[in-house]
Amino acid sequence: MNEISEAFNRIRKYINYTPVMSSRTLDNLFKAKISFKCENFQRIGAFKARGAFNAIIQLSAEERKRGVVTHSSGNHAQAVSLASTVLGVKSTIIMPSNAPKIKKIATKSYGANVIECDNNQSDIVERTNEFIDEHGSILIHPYNDWQVIHGAGTAAYELLQEEKNLNIILAPIGGGGLISGTSLAVKGLSPSTHVIGVEPQNANDAFKSFKDGTKIYPSIDPDTIADGLRTSLGDITFEVIKDNVKNIFTVTEKSIIEAMRFIWERMKIIVEPSGAVPLAGLFKINEENLIDIRGLKIGLIISGGNIDLSAFFSMLEKKIRTK
Amino acid sequence: MNEISEAFNRIRKYINYTPVMSSRTLDNLFKAKISFKCENFQRIGAFKARGAFNAIIQLSAEERKRGVVTHSSGNHAQAVSLASTVLGVKSTIIMPSNAPKIKKIATKSYGANVIECDNNQSDIVERTNEFIDEHGSILIHPYNDWQVIHGAGTAAYELLQEEKNLNIILAPIGGGGLISGTSLAVKGLSPSTHVIGVEPQNANDAFKSFKDGTKIYPSIDPDTIADGLRTSLGDITFEVIKDNVKNIFTVTEKSIIEAMRFIWERMKIIVEPSGAVPLAGLFKINEENLIDIRGLKIGLIISGGNIDLSAFFSMLEKKIRTK
Repeated sequence: MNEISEAFNRIRKYINYTPVMSSRTLDNLFKAKISFKCENFQRIGAFKARGAFNAIIQLSAEERKRGVVTHSSGNHAQAVSLASTVLGVKSTIIMPSNAPKIKKIATKSYGANVIECDNNQSDIVERTNEFIDEHGSILIHPYNDWQVIHGAGTAAYELLQEEKNLNIILAPIGGGGLISGTSLAVKGLSPSTHVIGVEPQNANDAFKSFKDGTKIYPSIDPDTIADGLRTSLGDITFEVIKDNVKNIFTVTEKSIIEAMRFIWERMKIIVEPSGAVPLAGLFKINEENLIDIRGLKIGLIISGGNIDLSAFFSMLEKKIRTK
Repeated sequence: MNEISEAFNRIRKYINYTPVMSSRTLDNLFKAKISFKCENFQRIGAFKARGAFNAIIQLSAEERKRGVVTHSSGNHAQAVSLASTVLGVKSTIIMPSNAPKIKKIATKSYGANVIECDNNQSDIVERTNEFIDEHGSILIHPYNDWQVIHGAGTAAYELLQEEKNLNIILAPIGGGGLISGTSLAVKGLSPSTHVIGVEPQNANDAFKSFKDGTKIYPSIDPDTIADGLRTSLGDITFEVIKDNVKNIFTVTEKSIIEAMRFIWERMKIIVEPSGAVPLAGLFKINEENLIDIRGLKIGLIISGGNIDLSAFFSMLEKKIRTK
């Protein structure tokens, strides 16, 4: 636990203490008390700011001079870009060419040097390693890094300060950084709380690895609308998950969109598909009676809110032009 | 002032105490401190719940038996429907046939009897009067009603509890209920604060009436994307505005969409076009240097967040089906 509270004290002046929200409709529907930890209101629009600040703050003066590098399809890219600029460190981000345009633009706008590469994971890692060999930059891995994990855990740390005696916390799983940090925060602050992961069925390497007990070789280019969860587990995150996570459920693409729509329409907040995955999981748990949730206190980590809205606003603009 | 604090105490257990949010980007851009009172998080998704509860609670037992009726294109309809159901009163809503579908569905779902009529204001009023003649129901006017105005003022009342010494409060103007209530709350709690109205250029009857000093005859069917602001001033709201509002500015359709997009993308909350009108006004004030806002503390009343998202989610669903 010390690592998470230390991380919290280290980064608190750089990040937002995000609000916890609820929905009267949902509580009535589930006969439970559901608390949403809203990391869509975090700086850069996602929890990733926490890990990036926690990792970069701790670099030595010599390391800071060398600059940092990472590979990311989006939110971690923006987080490293922002944290580097705020802390006066040079940053380079290797981004797959199919990363959402809005995330590419934002990453550049925070100050990073962006290099695009092919979409498959091996190319991304290769290009990053080449860059490190050439420039000696420090890698800030998107999730398989203790400082990044401890930073990510500060979201659950804040939630547990506000909501005592949660029975369950649900978090999405991509590379596993958020749920690893969450499970470590829970271990220290509220050991009786069960941490449950939710993963898109179309990118279910964590689910499979968890069931098998050994880390499976993931599919090369998983196709899910939850673009933040296309990554696969790292060695560190797999070990943390194996030891501290109670269960993992998978959800369909359709259910992710339904959960997202519920949050947008009923709660009036913008979450990206990845951020809606825990609610999709909760709908499934309830519908299929996987856990009897009546009367429980449940926390959901809404990981982020970065989604491309251009198409929607083009539609609105067209509407006023054609009048 | 007493009326507003009395209204607040009367309705507090039925409504949400909504959060005040801010944007680091915006504060840096304007070199000012901007506070958003987020009535998109209010019950039924808009400030209208405040006025409806305040009016209906105060009906006598005999009046409650007769039921209530109102005419509204949307948010007031939902508000009267919800408040009536919660308070055990029968409600009927006369809605124009061009009201947003999502608002019609929601109004019915809260329990009201909905009657559709033609889109022009005179037909709506005629049908309402006919209904009252026939059934003896009590009219809960959407804005030209002191109880509705005092209820609406409780949003600013809450904002002023949290944010002291605001220099300016900006509120949208449709029929004038929200800004009237706001200006009365300010008069009691913070008389040095200037209340400024913002109105769509395409539905500018309040702007014109305010400049002329006499209530002008409004256009029959004003065409603005801000569907909550198509209504025109009432006798009561015009008098309150004349006495207590400092100025009124108008904004273009394009600027309303731009402001809305800023709020969605940067603040990650869903506001309807009417709710973005005050920010469109602030952008105009800043760009055209109408007021030097540097260093000021400014409050914006975000009136609501009810917007039809079907087209957006159809797009997303199509995306996963075609893969």
